[in-house]
Amino acid sequence: MTTVPVLINGRCEHWVDALDRGLQYGDGLFETLLVGDGHPFFWSEHLARLAEGCRRLAIPMPNSEILRQEAHQLCRESSSGSGVLKILLTRGVGGRGYRSPAEVHPTRVISLHPLPPDLDSRRRQGIRVRLCQTPLGINPTLAGVKHCNRLEQVLAIQEWNDPDIQEGLMCDTDGYLVEGIMANLFWLKGKCAYTPKIDRCGVAGVVRAWVMGQLRQWNLEVHEVRVKPEVLLEADEVFATNSVMGIVPLVEWPCRQHLWPIGEMTRRLQTAFWR
Amino acid sequence: MTTVPVLINGRCEHWVDALDRGLQYGDGLFETLLVGDGHPFFWSEHLARLAEGCRRLAIPMPNSEILRQEAHQLCRESSSGSGVLKILLTRGVGGRGYRSPAEVHPTRVISLHPLPPDLDSRRRQGIRVRLCQTPLGINPTLAGVKHCNRLEQVLAIQEWNDPDIQEGLMCDTDGYLVEGIMANLFWLKGKCAYTPKIDRCGVAGVVRAWVMGQLRQWNLEVHEVRVKPEVLLEADEVFATNSVMGIVPLVEWPCRQHLWPIGEMTRRLQTAFWR
Repeated sequence: MTTVPVLINGRCEHWVDALDRGLQYGDGLFETLLVGDGHPFFWSEHLARLAEGCRRLAIPMPNSEILRQEAHQLCRESSSGSGVLKILLTRGVGGRGYRSPAEVHPTRVISLHPLPPDLDSRRRQGIRVRLCQTPLGINPTLAGVKHCNRLEQVLAIQEWNDPDIQEGLMCDTDGYLVEGIMANLFWLKGKCAYTPKIDRCGVAGVVRAWVMGQLRQWNLEVHEVRVKPEVLLEADEVFATNSVMGIVPLVEWPCRQHLWPIGEMTRRLQTAFWR
Repeated sequence: MTTVPVLINGRCEHWVDALDRGLQYGDGLFETLLVGDGHPFFWSEHLARLAEGCRRLAIPMPNSEILRQEAHQLCRESSSGSGVLKILLTRGVGGRGYRSPAEVHPTRVISLHPLPPDLDSRRRQGIRVRLCQTPLGINPTLAGVKHCNRLEQVLAIQEWNDPDIQEGLMCDTDGYLVEGIMANLFWLKGKCAYTPKIDRCGVAGVVRAWVMGQLRQWNLEVHEVRVKPEVLLEADEVFATNSVMGIVPLVEWPCRQHLWPIGEMTRRLQTAFWR
């Protein structure tokens, strides 16, 4: 039984039709937003990405004013004023078979979740990582989109149980570094910043785009690259980005007995991000 | 609103929890069975594949006697005694985030659907195909499993609307032929039969396994191969297999202005299959 507040197509419900294509095929998209002081952060950026995902998957984009109202209705229900807002959009109910019905009525599932308990310590002290065996399949048709086909991430996170490891590095089937299971990756080396290309798989993170813009505003070169994960061992500083954590330093890769210092640029980005 | 009979965890309901991981991540498996005379065909083969899928994804396999009872309960409701039974199994309800809860309670969604209207003509007269642009991502971790991450198939079938084309040929991102959107593929050339390898992507179809076994019983060599789709233009006869259609001849690839005869072996297999 769901215990968090949920709005389904604007109604306070906890149930979706069993023939929803989101359930049948993962035929949908989602956005995860940090909520503070009763307001979702990066609202317009998340909505723009949702619209782009809708265009890529040919799902009708809901009216953005309706989404805003529903999001704010849920945020107002949060007693603390903070949390994680998830907007899930599916192609709606369909019959059996992959072909969608002639008339598509997308399903909106908006839910508000508590903040992860260790958020502050992750941001201040950083996180430890491991390398996942589960690869990301390469498919440019889906690359960048935050869609609901997430079995690769589900299997990757099953690879370990040690709570001292908070994130897994994922490579594509050619062995190139793409992202973390739940975050994008950046590293600095000399006077340049690097992040993996997401043209063949991976998610085009909202905070990833913000960080790239901010670094370029500071006249740093940012290169999108296709490299093996071992390149991180040579980096001066490494950090991960997502909408809930913001920017978090990577401090240790225990299996490789490697430690990274929390770098000046990571701290500078964190400061600018929370401003 | 769902209009077909559905059992959810054994109860006559049409709704699943909005936080079910099937909806959130496509974190589940499904089986599609043909029902005739009130009984699902190839029951034990489908259950074995479901169990294997559960093992691969680490989802607890439900008690098979419970599944059998629920399937038969739905089949009895069918007035005609025929239809398509879909068994969908998810990792159940979870919180936000990819990691599954410590205790997993899978969700069983069993539904009974009408037969496709043109089934007889497909079996007798065959189907027309086209080549899809949407590729299948390569990921051995998920290859063969009939899981609920099906956006590739959803996008592929959106590529055309012509009702005279009934199936699309799908290749992997390296351009090798893998399967149809909804069926496995076979072709005959000389005294050998061929079917694409499904070790990097694709579904291990129940009828595919039956056909391979039957052909070998008839002392035909069956080769699992990695070849380009154009190889079909050189074939003596071509057919597609899935649980609903059984075995259907491919008769035309209009974009290549190519016709295939309905071969003797296709008809012999159809006869053996329906016996």
